Amino acid sequence: MSVHIRVVTPVIPTGLTEAAHFEGILGPDDCLDFVEIDKGPSSIECAFDEMLATADTVSKIIQAERAGVDAVVLDCMGDPGLRPGRETVSIPVLGPCQTAMNLACTLGHRFSLLAVTANMRIQFENQAKLYGAWDRYTSTRSVEIPVLDLCAQSDVLKEKLLDAAVCAITEDDADTLIIGCTGMVGLAVDLQTRLHEAGWSVPVIDPLPVAARLAKVLVESRLTHSKRAYPTPGKKLIRGYDGSALEAFNG
Amino acid sequence: MSVHIRVVTPVIPTGLTEAAHFEGILGPDDCLDFVEIDKGPSSIECAFDEMLATADTVSKIIQAERAGVDAVVLDCMGDPGLRPGRETVSIPVLGPCQTAMNLACTLGHRFSLLAVTANMRIQFENQAKLYGAWDRYTSTRSVEIPVLDLCAQSDVLKEKLLDAAVCAITEDDADTLIIGCTGMVGLAVDLQTRLHEAGWSVPVIDPLPVAARLAKVLVESRLTHSKRAYPTPGKKLIRGYDGSALEAFNG
Amino acid sequence: MSVHIRVVTPVIPTGLTEAAHFEGILGPDDCLDFVEIDKGPSSIECAFDEMLATADTVSKIIQAERAGVDAVVLDCMGDPGLRPGRETVSIPVLGPCQTAMNLACTLGHRFSLLAVTANMRIQFENQAKLYGAWDRYTSTRSVEIPVLDLCAQSDVLKEKLLDAAVCAITEDDADTLIIGCTGMVGLAVDLQTRLHEAGWSVPVIDPLPVAARLAKVLVESRLTHSKRAYPTPGKKLIRGYDGSALEAFNG
Amino acid sequence: MSVHIRVVTPVIPTGLTEAAHFEGILGPDDCLDFVEIDKGPSSIECAFDEMLATADTVSKIIQAERAGVDAVVLDCMGDPGLRPGRETVSIPVLGPCQTAMNLACTLGHRFSLLAVTANMRIQFENQAKLYGAWDRYTSTRSVEIPVLDLCAQSDVLKEKLLDAAVCAITEDDADTLIIGCTGMVGLAVDLQTRLHEAGWSVPVIDPLPVAARLAKVLVESRLTHSKRAYPTPGKKLIRGYDGSALEAFNG
Amino acid sequence: MSVHIRVVTPVIPTGLTEAAHFEGILGPDDCLDFVEIDKGPSSIECAFDEMLATADTVSKIIQAERAGVDAVVLDCMGDPGLRPGRETVSIPVLGPCQTAMNLACTLGHRFSLLAVTANMRIQFENQAKLYGAWDRYTSTRSVEIPVLDLCAQSDVLKEKLLDAAVCAITEDDADTLIIGCTGMVGLAVDLQTRLHEAGWSVPVIDPLPVAARLAKVLVESRLTHSKRAYPTPGKKLIRGYDGSALEAFNG
Amino acid sequence: MSVHIRVVTPVIPTGLTEAAHFEGILGPDDCLDFVEIDKGPSSIECAFDEMLATADTVSKIIQAERAGVDAVVLDCMGDPGLRPGRETVSIPVLGPCQTAMNLACTLGHRFSLLAVTANMRIQFENQAKLYGAWDRYTSTRSVEIPVLDLCAQSDVLKEKLLDAAVCAITEDDADTLIIGCTGMVGLAVDLQTRLHEAGWSVPVIDPLPVAARLAKVLVESRLTHSKRAYPTPGKKLIRGYDGSALEAFNG
Repeated sequence: MSVHIRVVTPVIPTGLTEAAHFEGILGPDDCLDFVEIDKGPSSIECAFDEMLATADTVSKIIQAERAGVDAVVLDCMGDPGLRPGRETVSIPVLGPCQTAMNLACTLGHRFSLLAVTANMRIQFENQAKLYGAWDRYTSTRSVEIPVLDLCAQSDVLKEKLLDAAVCAITEDDADTLIIGCTGMVGLAVDLQTRLHEAGWSVPVIDPLPVAARLAKVLVESRLTHSKRAYPTPGKKLIRGYDGSALEAFNG
Repeated sequence: MSVHIRVVTPVIPTGLTEAAHFEGILGPDDCLDFVEIDKGPSSIECAFDEMLATADTVSKIIQAERAGVDAVVLDCMGDPGLRPGRETVSIPVLGPCQTAMNLACTLGHRFSLLAVTANMRIQFENQAKLYGAWDRYTSTRSVEIPVLDLCAQSDVLKEKLLDAAVCAITEDDADTLIIGCTGMVGLAVDLQTRLHEAGWSVPVIDPLPVAARLAKVLVESRLTHSKRAYPTPGKKLIRGYDGSALEAFNG
Repeated sequence: MSVHIRVVTPVIPTGLTEAAHFEGILGPDDCLDFVEIDKGPSSIECAFDEMLATADTVSKIIQAERAGVDAVVLDCMGDPGLRPGRETVSIPVLGPCQTAMNLACTLGHRFSLLAVTANMRIQFENQAKLYGAWDRYTSTRSVEIPVLDLCAQSDVLKEKLLDAAVCAITEDDADTLIIGCTGMVGLAVDLQTRLHEAGWSVPVIDPLPVAARLAKVLVESRLTHSKRAYPTPGKKLIRGYDGSALEAFNG
Repeated sequence: MSVHIRVVTPVIPTGLTEAAHFEGILGPDDCLDFVEIDKGPSSIECAFDEMLATADTVSKIIQAERAGVDAVVLDCMGDPGLRPGRETVSIPVLGPCQTAMNLACTLGHRFSLLAVTANMRIQFENQAKLYGAWDRYTSTRSVEIPVLDLCAQSDVLKEKLLDAAVCAITEDDADTLIIGCTGMVGLAVDLQTRLHEAGWSVPVIDPLPVAARLAKVLVESRLTHSKRAYPTPGKKLIRGYDGSALEAFNG
Repeated sequence: MSVHIRVVTPVIPTGLTEAAHFEGILGPDDCLDFVEIDKGPSSIECAFDEMLATADTVSKIIQAERAGVDAVVLDCMGDPGLRPGRETVSIPVLGPCQTAMNLACTLGHRFSLLAVTANMRIQFENQAKLYGAWDRYTSTRSVEIPVLDLCAQSDVLKEKLLDAAVCAITEDDADTLIIGCTGMVGLAVDLQTRLHEAGWSVPVIDPLPVAARLAKVLVESRLTHSKRAYPTPGKKLIRGYDGSALEAFNG
Repeated sequence: MSVHIRVVTPVIPTGLTEAAHFEGILGPDDCLDFVEIDKGPSSIECAFDEMLATADTVSKIIQAERAGVDAVVLDCMGDPGLRPGRETVSIPVLGPCQTAMNLACTLGHRFSLLAVTANMRIQFENQAKLYGAWDRYTSTRSVEIPVLDLCAQSDVLKEKLLDAAVCAITEDDADTLIIGCTGMVGLAVDLQTRLHEAGWSVPVIDPLPVAARLAKVLVESRLTHSKRAYPTPGKKLIRGYDGSALEAFNG
């Protein structure tokens, strides 16, 4: 069964996200495309950035369903628009953070996040509480590199990721790791290998590819998020979103 | 000490909110004004509505600080914009739901929400988890009247509130109640009196007035939310918010 | 990428499990075979039954890895042998209960199990606590049909499943459901459809197929359970398991 | 609206508590007086001290209500007599520890106590569990100065408070602080300022003034503790409390 | 090994407590005596009653240690004086509620209390939280008979206990029961037998006898409560306890 | 009352366990004998070892009941066979880990385990969650000596136990300790004494003797585990356990 999954990248285009990031994640017959938003921030590093991105992200989710896409995957660990997005559509909408945290509960006993900066800790703690993963959440360690500098510093990034991972394992007793920013997509396998060579056999979850593959599993299994938990909004007077897909709920 | 507190009502003007709602809440020398948003929904009943309201709500919060207001109180139990709003300003920003839940922990042992509709339950459960009030959260009971019909049905509303309150007390063992929608502002004392007459001595919290008074306490006590928990965003490229106060963080 | 996943059915052959149950779960190029155990019970309905099955189940897991299988999926909601099995091999070993509970956390807010009999409740509560899914676990409802009678009573089973599901939704506020016995494999989609027709849009998870598909995702993602959480046992003197694959750890 | 709030200081007079401590906390038209107990310890630093103070503290609470006082605030972080006191009267009775812990949940994400001595840790942990604030309780740090020496060592106290605060922030990830003894009343603003100068923008809660101001808010809001959670005791034979207000319940 | 255990009954003498209640609990060579208090209430049914009893209860605990008693058991489910009592002595001090709740965690999966009146629920919930037994606490059911009427109504009491027990089992899914008042000492075996005859095989814990026997186990095992968790108070000025053993800490 | 308690040692005979270990634990009129298993591992240090031991351990439990033994105590901190064993018999079956953890909740505020090796941490965390002791579980510290080397290294063992204990107290704030392996039976009193001399007054629980004494208390109190929580298995076809007591459930 071939599927069409769409990645919604909740930042405005700056060249950071490329189709190449998503090649090979799904099968040769599947389609995994991506779309960036028109209105919002150039990166998401706090609740304010997330707020700027959410409305247009949900608009893209609605457009995806209209275009016949089978499922949507968000491209940010803040899972911006996850709840309103799920309310507005029936196709599966997956957040990489929620997916990775719940999967980490299946793979190990205590998981840690490897974040870009330390002030993501509170966001991840809040998400773990909301996603029912708090019992296993262990810690957040960071590389202290802003999202927009990740590419430029790709060399030091790998070293800092390794350092952060070893701290999580040896100081926090983590046994499962999650890459804490989808801007670091593709680095999990290398980190996992280097940790293994260093004597630490811990899985390192790359949230976006895992979420995309799980999205396909949901489609194959005829599953989606609970519409009872995320009921479709009724129409009401809305001002200020003319021309966007959100207008569908205006009336 | 006299203070200037601003209520930010996160819905577009429909005549529902009036200055009269806020008269007498603070002292004669204090100023308690309110502002509605320009872009957003006409009421907030789900995560989608909340999303529509958040950006302009935060814009109003930023404008309030610039105008020399001492503190801001949100006028919706979803506390829309609480986190991004606190990131963007230094003056206290209070959400009525968070304030009421934490106060309920001080007044009793188990608290319940009296909501407009049953599907608010999940939102309140999520908020209780995020606000550290989960241990005391007991249940959500509802009157099943949409926000925009509250005025029209004000008579039946009082009866349904009493019924919901009695259910929460007798079936869920609640001993403290919170009015679950700021559109029902002003009904708490009457409900508390009728419950008392019926033999139930339980406090009924009216979230908005309590939040406004607590906001004054914070100003008097030279306290605000922790900026370490809600750090100020750095500037970055933002598109689509020209002309709003949010532009202050564009660059 | 094609994978070879093996289902280990932790009961002795009685004709209950057929290859037909697993057809079409994976892709045409994948291999999904199954093996039953030689020593153990004819069904698993309590901790005693599970104990009888565990040793030979782990033996089959070890044999699967030796045979070059890519991943193992257990065929019982008790997840018998999950921990010792994961200790003995490096390939992914998935339990349908753990997989379904953690997935349920991703799809909804509160999940319930639909069990064969009421006395499975404590087992599911213990598993939810061990799997980090306790925050979302809501209830266990049952059809009161012993495992070995499921086939004979397949007609009433569908009705009783629907009744149990409606109870979980209306009385326990569940919004996500999990089929509580792999002996009921294949009934989820029908139940989901009937619930949808009755006005309840809740996902119904069929644990075994979902676990098999997630196993493929893990192989594709080069992920397995944390060997730091499930370290390989050292060799020591073992008596009584001559001729079984467990002997590999005798010495 | 002017109120009469009484501080009940649950220690015998030793000159430690002065009216000056309470000046300016409420408005010019309000009355905030205080009373010490006749029977009890000279300071409270353990459960034994608290026990010695409780009976006469409750007696003073009953007398306050009889005298027409609007609300009572306890003057000790052990909140001695909070539960029995609330049972015996209808006016609000606030404990500074409970009030501060629940307020800290509103202001930040993780709060720590700055205690006089380390052995207060267990008391604060127990209180956090009883007050529904356990999710946010982070740690207890101490200055290691006995209560009765606080005045004499006021200079080193400020330094030690700063050290303890920095430890809580940097080692325990606290973002909100609570002064852990009402004998340190008035030091919060100075500590908050010095932390701010050192780059830590965290609120420091001074429990007694905040509790007194919240008491006024409760009176203004016509709220008190839940009498359903704290029911009035019935009369029964009591021996040994002749001449105290507690005799009111003897019969 | 023979031991001397003292029961401290925290109420003034009214003829309710008799030596006969404690006969046969320990071995023929052991001594199990009891003492009532001189100052306090005639029964304990709320926090106010408990407060009245605590000081003299602790005085009796101190006297017991001085008299060479091996361990003390409190004779009230409120465990009055447990914390201050443990601070003041080194011999084991056991509360029947704490002992019964922790033992219930060993015997079953979910325990309920069978209380005298419904308003004990909050006290038991608080105790379960303080005693680390909250995960297993299930509910409080009551017979609605005041403590002082238990003897007079001994016939209906047995029927009401059975009714409360069946409610806890069938409506709350309890599988382990605790008699919720030491005034009902001796009724557990009969209730357990009647439940067994009715098809419910659940243990019914009689808190006082079990606490007395566990006290002997602690003495035999050379164990006592942690003095690190319950440190001995230092001396300080105390007023109002002349002539009581509490004076030992005055100075 | 004299009792007959049987210790079931879930390892094959290697000379490690001697009758001398159990002398003096119960009274002169009591019988405390022990039996080792015929099929299983020579020591238990992981879930795999535990699995190898469980079936024959349960067989010995069934035989004990048939032989008229009053209660069974398991001789391993993994409590192997506790759940299936309790299902198969009506006499009390106690696990030393569960007993010690629940008793630790009675004696102190935070308990730590002193384990043989660090990788026991996850097992103890899982047990604390299953036994309702998670709120008080603090940490696991280890001596890093394999079970089979404990005797040979008895001298260094005492030093390493003291070091591990001091770490648990000073670094983890533990105030109650549990010896983490029944192979270290008899070392608790010495450790407790040395800690006391070093200024740490913390109880050190020796799990097996405490469990044996509690087993006697249960018999004297006519209590056993809840059969409602551990219902007796029905008969069904079982293969591979010919000649063992487990055959009793075959049919």
